Amino acid sequence: MSTPTQTMPSPDLFFDTALAYQRSAALKTAIELGLFTAIGDGQSSVDQLAARCEAAPRGVRILCHYLASLGFLDKRGEEFALTPVSAAFLSKGSPAYLGDTLQFLSSGEIVGNFDHLTDTIRRGTMAQSANNTVSEENPVWVKFAEAMVPMMMPNAMAIADLLNTTGKVRVLDIAAGHGIFGVVLAQRNPDAEIVAVDWPSVLKVASANAARFGVAQRHQTKPGDAFKVDFGNGFDVALITNFLHHFDTATNVQFLRKVAAALKPGGRAVILEFVPNADKVSPPFPAQFGLTMLAGTPAGDVYSLEELEQMLGSAGFSRVTAHPTPTPERVVVGIKS
Amino acid sequence: MSTPTQTMPSPDLFFDTALAYQRSAALKTAIELGLFTAIGDGQSSVDQLAARCEAAPRGVRILCHYLASLGFLDKRGEEFALTPVSAAFLSKGSPAYLGDTLQFLSSGEIVGNFDHLTDTIRRGTMAQSANNTVSEENPVWVKFAEAMVPMMMPNAMAIADLLNTTGKVRVLDIAAGHGIFGVVLAQRNPDAEIVAVDWPSVLKVASANAARFGVAQRHQTKPGDAFKVDFGNGFDVALITNFLHHFDTATNVQFLRKVAAALKPGGRAVILEFVPNADKVSPPFPAQFGLTMLAGTPAGDVYSLEELEQMLGSAGFSRVTAHPTPTPERVVVGIKS
Repeated sequence: MSTPTQTMPSPDLFFDTALAYQRSAALKTAIELGLFTAIGDGQSSVDQLAARCEAAPRGVRILCHYLASLGFLDKRGEEFALTPVSAAFLSKGSPAYLGDTLQFLSSGEIVGNFDHLTDTIRRGTMAQSANNTVSEENPVWVKFAEAMVPMMMPNAMAIADLLNTTGKVRVLDIAAGHGIFGVVLAQRNPDAEIVAVDWPSVLKVASANAARFGVAQRHQTKPGDAFKVDFGNGFDVALITNFLHHFDTATNVQFLRKVAAALKPGGRAVILEFVPNADKVSPPFPAQFGLTMLAGTPAGDVYSLEELEQMLGSAGFSRVTAHPTPTPERVVVGIKS
Repeated sequence: MSTPTQTMPSPDLFFDTALAYQRSAALKTAIELGLFTAIGDGQSSVDQLAARCEAAPRGVRILCHYLASLGFLDKRGEEFALTPVSAAFLSKGSPAYLGDTLQFLSSGEIVGNFDHLTDTIRRGTMAQSANNTVSEENPVWVKFAEAMVPMMMPNAMAIADLLNTTGKVRVLDIAAGHGIFGVVLAQRNPDAEIVAVDWPSVLKVASANAARFGVAQRHQTKPGDAFKVDFGNGFDVALITNFLHHFDTATNVQFLRKVAAALKPGGRAVILEFVPNADKVSPPFPAQFGLTMLAGTPAGDVYSLEELEQMLGSAGFSRVTAHPTPTPERVVVGIKS
């Protein structure tokens, strides 16, 4: 027996992927220890960081080396410094701090859906035992609403920039969650009025954010399931953010027809989504997000721009346009014919 | 309140790391389903693969898109093909198949050590509840011995090439595990005689490999703990492969002195290790391997070449040289003075 090795490709991608779970664990641990915040506050040596984070120097040293190898820290002599990405997103002093978002993304109710992925693929849908993220009143959405504001703020600002509304506009913010998309729009346009739809427990978070951002008097709430509640009508804009990926095409078409009925003629359906290319394997984040939907919803998926255009067309929208954001998501706008 | 976004760096590294655990899960699932093997056998459409892997088309489709986005599959129209890395390492038809290695690397007894990483960092050593990979007779080493042959074969061949022994040489293969390092050396040199040391349960795997590769008559075993067993003396070569990283410096120096006593003058200590640069944060695999040792051993670590030279020097070795392998590990050789 012998094994040829001369013509073998590098196994690096294999090992990188096999051990990738360690990266998520290390980042979660660093957030839990407040390591980046400590470095942002000026602690830089292993001993200083160990004292500040109430951890053992050996543990801190090895963790810092690991994080530096990933690009989250710079090592200068025997001192550690933040890199641009950790300074922006992982130190509590930053307005774009994503530590709470990470706690949500790495919580057992999200990560646990990948524990029995082989069964999920065999079945073709989430396990009975999985945490159905689209089930009614799932408490995960309250956590989500609280955790996702910093992650979604760049997209909320991108949508407000794109729509650039002026004068009296009525905005339906569907499955509003943290409510930040409607709230930022209301901040930009002092004559905009928002109606936020979500489950009652989640709307409390949206209302709190509306108050925090000073637009509470123009921010109404309509509690209920987005598929069942009466939206009313005469809206200029419907915000459909991070929503369609939870459902199959037929459900989405039916839903978009309901949205169309709530809009004025010429009103805009504004979709925020992970939109992969037509090949469905690029770019990485949108392509990979399908697996999260497979693991955590009964029939969710990611949809290409062509597929979203078809759904919108079937529901009475036309002149569909797509727009980049500062994140891997895109904004897709359709006009009610 | 407002959040500036214009000057923010990309959050891609953050999300990539936060979601990295999904990559490990997807690869493990693909191996469990035999997906790459099915594609290697000529199944290429989602429906064909679903039938062959006894899985749902929706699950297979989303998984294939995910794997293609990582670089493990090529999508051509609606058909999937292996890439060089998956053809070489993930399809059972390949002699370098690493699927069994992956099953070991992703088993609960390895991955579980990262479940409470924050406590590990605070403590500075593995949890009481962790799976101590250096504990005596840990059954994980039998699994390891069985799973690691294909992963270690390129290194075994690199070591045999490097040593290039001829004539009668006596080789001490310490903590031999699967035994493949000594076995390949014996295959190359028909006059080499191997003495493999490990726990009795593990030596059964080494002996089976010696038989499988046709060198059983020159492959003896010496059961026992490498720190306690009498090695004998007069050896030309001592193989110390993937061993030193489990222990602290003082333990390693003491151990290397024992090795020196077993070698002839001019005999070679041959160390296979993850050797990071002196900065301890590069290259990626050696730098990151320290965290695995933190999580799974009482006092293990990765050592730079300078540190290994110091250990060897303290134990009576000189003329230390370092050599690359086809993997992220290096071979470090010291000569008994």
